[in-house]
Amino acid sequence: MTADALLASVTTQTDTPEDRLRRAKTASRAIARLTSDEKAAVLHAIADALVSDAERIIAANADDLRRGETDGIGASLLDRLRLDGARIDGLAGAVRQVASLPDPVGELVRGQRMYNGVMLEQRRVPFGVVGAIYEARPNVTVDIAAIALQAGNAVVLRGGSAARSSNEVLVDVMRRSLAAHGVDAEAIQTVDDFGRDGARALMHGRGLVDVLVPRGSAGLIETVVTESTVPVIETGAGNVHIVLDASAPDDWARDIVVNAKVQRPSVCNAAETVLVVREGAARLVAPVVEALQREGVTVHGDEAVASLAGGVVPATEEDWATEYLSLDIAMRVVDSLDDAMEHIRAYSTGHTESIVTADVRNAERFLAEVDSAAVFANASTRFTDGGEFGFGAEVGISTQKLHARGPMGLPELTSTKWVGRGSGQVRG
Amino acid sequence: MTADALLASVTTQTDTPEDRLRRAKTASRAIARLTSDEKAAVLHAIADALVSDAERIIAANADDLRRGETDGIGASLLDRLRLDGARIDGLAGAVRQVASLPDPVGELVRGQRMYNGVMLEQRRVPFGVVGAIYEARPNVTVDIAAIALQAGNAVVLRGGSAARSSNEVLVDVMRRSLAAHGVDAEAIQTVDDFGRDGARALMHGRGLVDVLVPRGSAGLIETVVTESTVPVIETGAGNVHIVLDASAPDDWARDIVVNAKVQRPSVCNAAETVLVVREGAARLVAPVVEALQREGVTVHGDEAVASLAGGVVPATEEDWATEYLSLDIAMRVVDSLDDAMEHIRAYSTGHTESIVTADVRNAERFLAEVDSAAVFANASTRFTDGGEFGFGAEVGISTQKLHARGPMGLPELTSTKWVGRGSGQVRG
Repeated sequence: MTADALLASVTTQTDTPEDRLRRAKTASRAIARLTSDEKAAVLHAIADALVSDAERIIAANADDLRRGETDGIGASLLDRLRLDGARIDGLAGAVRQVASLPDPVGELVRGQRMYNGVMLEQRRVPFGVVGAIYEARPNVTVDIAAIALQAGNAVVLRGGSAARSSNEVLVDVMRRSLAAHGVDAEAIQTVDDFGRDGARALMHGRGLVDVLVPRGSAGLIETVVTESTVPVIETGAGNVHIVLDASAPDDWARDIVVNAKVQRPSVCNAAETVLVVREGAARLVAPVVEALQREGVTVHGDEAVASLAGGVVPATEEDWATEYLSLDIAMRVVDSLDDAMEHIRAYSTGHTESIVTADVRNAERFLAEVDSAAVFANASTRFTDGGEFGFGAEVGISTQKLHARGPMGLPELTSTKWVGRGSGQVRG
Repeated sequence: MTADALLASVTTQTDTPEDRLRRAKTASRAIARLTSDEKAAVLHAIADALVSDAERIIAANADDLRRGETDGIGASLLDRLRLDGARIDGLAGAVRQVASLPDPVGELVRGQRMYNGVMLEQRRVPFGVVGAIYEARPNVTVDIAAIALQAGNAVVLRGGSAARSSNEVLVDVMRRSLAAHGVDAEAIQTVDDFGRDGARALMHGRGLVDVLVPRGSAGLIETVVTESTVPVIETGAGNVHIVLDASAPDDWARDIVVNAKVQRPSVCNAAETVLVVREGAARLVAPVVEALQREGVTVHGDEAVASLAGGVVPATEEDWATEYLSLDIAMRVVDSLDDAMEHIRAYSTGHTESIVTADVRNAERFLAEVDSAAVFANASTRFTDGGEFGFGAEVGISTQKLHARGPMGLPELTSTKWVGRGSGQVRG
């Protein structure tokens, strides 16, 4: 196809969501064959186009913001929805950052010469078509598309309807950049304009959607996991615990709890509950509570905590199950490390837990027995993060056990394939 | 718990399928902590018990066979259902074989010292609870339980109702072996006695079932994939293709096609369709068809094939989509390698395809562009097999792209977990 023909295909088509999935599937074959250099060129072109088309993007975003205000969506949602020059520069920078990451496609995972001389290898290959269902955050539109492309995939996007106008322009900008590089623009699709039907097509697109990534609230994720018949990677909520063992050093206990709660309370790896083993409670509770309160944190404690520190709000059963995502934390005194782990089993979402302890036996028991995506001894829970782990970009943090667990980087958006080269071998 | 108390818990309980899932979940924690030596001891005890309880197993199996005959199930199903002394010895041998495989649990997948000194590692850990839904083959009951245990998991089984009596005794024998070794017998559960409700509980057991493996017909797998809200590993059907390129050597073409069809026609990696590139058709079709016919194979060919060889049954559109699993094969002449790959895209189930060619360019294109779990150049499709790949045991062959693709061994029945050891590090 010529660049002109490709550009022509960029114009909005009136068709069904399934047609778009089919076109994405066809385009995915060309994307899978792009070299690392070609993908880098396309991603840099997208980054440049985002900056040069900033005015058009901001104008569309203004429509979304106006509609959002009329509809009375909250201030924090409006803030997440807003794009300005600086944020668009940031988006472009993120795309360039993704372009600079190692290309996972083609990586030799393992290989062997079979007993009969067939040379066998397992290579990393793209999934094909990655679907994404997410909320009204236009930056996710660009993030996910860039990450999917760098991992060799086509992508079909379904964003929150409050960001519809922004997403339409962002997708158009990205598709034009593909076309200008002679790459099939159908590799980036949106099904936003089909409303619920777009999401439904993604969730039921067996044979067309290779993996579906929901990003957003627990409710959105639950809906996608429950309704989908295509494979889903679940990126989950974080009801994150810190256990203060009887042997916990004072300074580590205080610093780790405060950092895990306060450094960025709104994210999934922030701590939500502190469990203090009774033997250390008299020494640890008061200074930790006071340090938290100095940072503006409200401590929701059980009776034992309230008896050891001032200004504690009584905790209810509900507090143990709450992911506050705010300057609130639950605190409970437990009889033993076993009781702490039992509490975690009952209430954790399996994201991240940490123990503060000087006792190697307790550290190793905790690390071995707590069944979460990430477990730490004597470190902040805030380290469960693709950036901190050195992945460069983060698709999300998986709380499921299939395929990917914990922070996901580019390789987690790929599959593998077995390749065998023989010279006439047959099975005996 | 004493061995007596554990044995007491072996007696059948009247409860709900969800209660059993819950008990399996609790037991899974103990199984996850068993050392390799302990697991080997339990598996050898199970193997011994199968042999020593053979009479009881055969008696229960006789009930199933009688019921099966009354219900008029077919001869091949009856044969798959049948257990005798030799087959029970074979089952015990398979369990001992699983016990001898490397323990995947604890394997260090990767690790690093983080920028701040936290020592980070990704370790292989058990899934927790593995569910299995399968048809009336009592050997699968023992196979899956042994593999799940060796990978550190508890297992909840739902077998075909025609094998109910056999499965009940097999599960009882295995549970008693666990209890006799002081291992929580609840780690092996059946929900056969709940009928459809048992399967439904497995498919909807979010938070209790970590992964569900369907094994059996395409219909069973489709039902499980569509209905489940827990993660599923899809083990799929094999509509397997062989392409004979214009440059295919005569002997490789003939030997590979015959082997891939005839050596064991009833399995998923057996070839079902041969695509011959037109330029080579006059040379290749007749000898390949004749070699197949000498082995008793019925060739369903298009007009071009029929014009080049005798005794060819006319192929219909349906033949291209059929997984015969019998001494039948479809054969079609295509204009080019591109057309062959287009046919494969349209009809393949993504299991295995092979090309026979002397042209390195065509071999490499085929290996790169055909999107199947396993692709071969110049080797039989029958090699897509856990045993052939050296895995020792096979859980099934995954045709999905998430988590596992192709033959699955013990590591594919595990997840991973990030473990970080620090000394007070917090995030800046």
